[in-house]
Amino acid sequence: MGSVRVHEVCLRDGLQNEQTLVSTADKARVLRQLIAAGCKDIEVTSFVRPRMIPQFADARDLMAMIPEADGVRFWVLVPNLKGLDRALDSFTKHIATFMSVSDAHNRRNVNRTVRESLVGVSRVLRDARLEGLGTRSYLSTAFGCPYEGFVSPQKTCELGLALLEAGAQTIALGDTTGMGTPAVVSDVLQAFFDAGVAPEQLAVHFHDTRGTALVNIHTSWSMGIRHFDGSVAGVGGCPYAHGAAGNACTQDAIHLFNSMGEEHGLSMEELCKAGEMLERFLGRELPGRYHRYWMGSRSTRVESARA
Amino acid sequence: MGSVRVHEVCLRDGLQNEQTLVSTADKARVLRQLIAAGCKDIEVTSFVRPRMIPQFADARDLMAMIPEADGVRFWVLVPNLKGLDRALDSFTKHIATFMSVSDAHNRRNVNRTVRESLVGVSRVLRDARLEGLGTRSYLSTAFGCPYEGFVSPQKTCELGLALLEAGAQTIALGDTTGMGTPAVVSDVLQAFFDAGVAPEQLAVHFHDTRGTALVNIHTSWSMGIRHFDGSVAGVGGCPYAHGAAGNACTQDAIHLFNSMGEEHGLSMEELCKAGEMLERFLGRELPGRYHRYWMGSRSTRVESARA
Repeated sequence: MGSVRVHEVCLRDGLQNEQTLVSTADKARVLRQLIAAGCKDIEVTSFVRPRMIPQFADARDLMAMIPEADGVRFWVLVPNLKGLDRALDSFTKHIATFMSVSDAHNRRNVNRTVRESLVGVSRVLRDARLEGLGTRSYLSTAFGCPYEGFVSPQKTCELGLALLEAGAQTIALGDTTGMGTPAVVSDVLQAFFDAGVAPEQLAVHFHDTRGTALVNIHTSWSMGIRHFDGSVAGVGGCPYAHGAAGNACTQDAIHLFNSMGEEHGLSMEELCKAGEMLERFLGRELPGRYHRYWMGSRSTRVESARA
Repeated sequence: MGSVRVHEVCLRDGLQNEQTLVSTADKARVLRQLIAAGCKDIEVTSFVRPRMIPQFADARDLMAMIPEADGVRFWVLVPNLKGLDRALDSFTKHIATFMSVSDAHNRRNVNRTVRESLVGVSRVLRDARLEGLGTRSYLSTAFGCPYEGFVSPQKTCELGLALLEAGAQTIALGDTTGMGTPAVVSDVLQAFFDAGVAPEQLAVHFHDTRGTALVNIHTSWSMGIRHFDGSVAGVGGCPYAHGAAGNACTQDAIHLFNSMGEEHGLSMEELCKAGEMLERFLGRELPGRYHRYWMGSRSTRVESARA
């Protein structure tokens, strides 16, 4: 292989905190554009309770609109067994679970201790594997928690091992609030490697809150990681901080991988068009660097053509 | 030593393309704030012809307002011997020269071939050294030219050697339009090292146009470079691309260096206040990631205090 694998999260993590509700038809348009761009792993929606996140109240309808697409894995986020049932009713083949590595963040997010979540998530993973589903498990705040600071890499690693044991095929290490830096990323990844986890069992999920997403991706890559989460146009920021950066921008990562000669199977141009769509549907400028560069050079081209 | 040195360019490269003219008094306010933040190398203005860049028509007045500040080097950009004379009249002690490594960019910028510029810049350097001035020489488009693509590292290195020979104390390798990536940066730096140039003779000047500024800084650091240009709040983007990123944001770099335990002598909080000032004086949101994070968390704090 040697090539990188990009897990596209713009429709799920990207839209999760957006106050503007995107219509199901528009989400399906983005989905088709992502497929056209060559995405092979697309996180489509979340089966959390609709009351919790109104953006995902249409999860079932959106799942019904997924087009035929050979070789594309469509992922859904599942909070618990009930969510898994709903996902299975929608003919899901790939599910993602989530929990934080820090108690303070986990309590605020799902009102449970880390140990309680580990039990619940493990049940979801076991049932999902019995159903023959593909599985990935997010470990949030793996590179820093806004309430507890840096959680020990050993604790994060222990949780990852427990999830792998329970049936997770991939552990997605999440830098939930963008506290990660190359030093922290190295420490956490090394803890996993020291425990015998292979790079192929890990994915990294960065946020660009403080500008470190790309340098963290590069650091992870240099340590052997080849599975990266990205969000087209960097959508997925904290909605309360105006102009703040969000998820690692898929195009930024692809620009980096292109410069390194890494194969990824994605079309930059088609990704950028997906970003333009998202920007239109959300009605605001999205923060991804390469996305903004592309939007800017595009408007310059339009102006030149007019002049 | 082992510590990093940051060359602050927000008042010069940062403001160069800004259409909003900042008053001399406001520039002096930013300057004082940069000194309060601990900056030891500050590029203050440019002695180009005022007709060329109206933002610097007040170069002489601003130079007269530089406060006493022990150990701070105040730099000015000088295009030619006439500019050097004007700079000397303003009691400059440190000058920076500039030229591109690609003919196409150099022609568009100063209407000369690279060889012609090399002759002119060398004269400025020799005279500057005779006057006892500190010198740095920018080599623009060192990591990519928008017209010619990637210039060979050997050509860039030859020009750098010629400038060092002519009296440049530092070669500042400029990624003028943000085309640099870790691979290109490594190639260019390695060419200099292979030619016997020490890391201490080089500085790197990145732009974040496509999101690669920080990963390029990290790559340069890992190759031994300790001298980095930064622009507070990332000011210095192309004014024609709305929302586009500009110079490498000083705070982004400092955040990275802090995470690595690198000493730099700068106060993040005071740098951020300088960024807030610049944003107010320019009347627009500035793009630096950490700057935006700080502005966002600041407004959140204010809202929390109100609630």
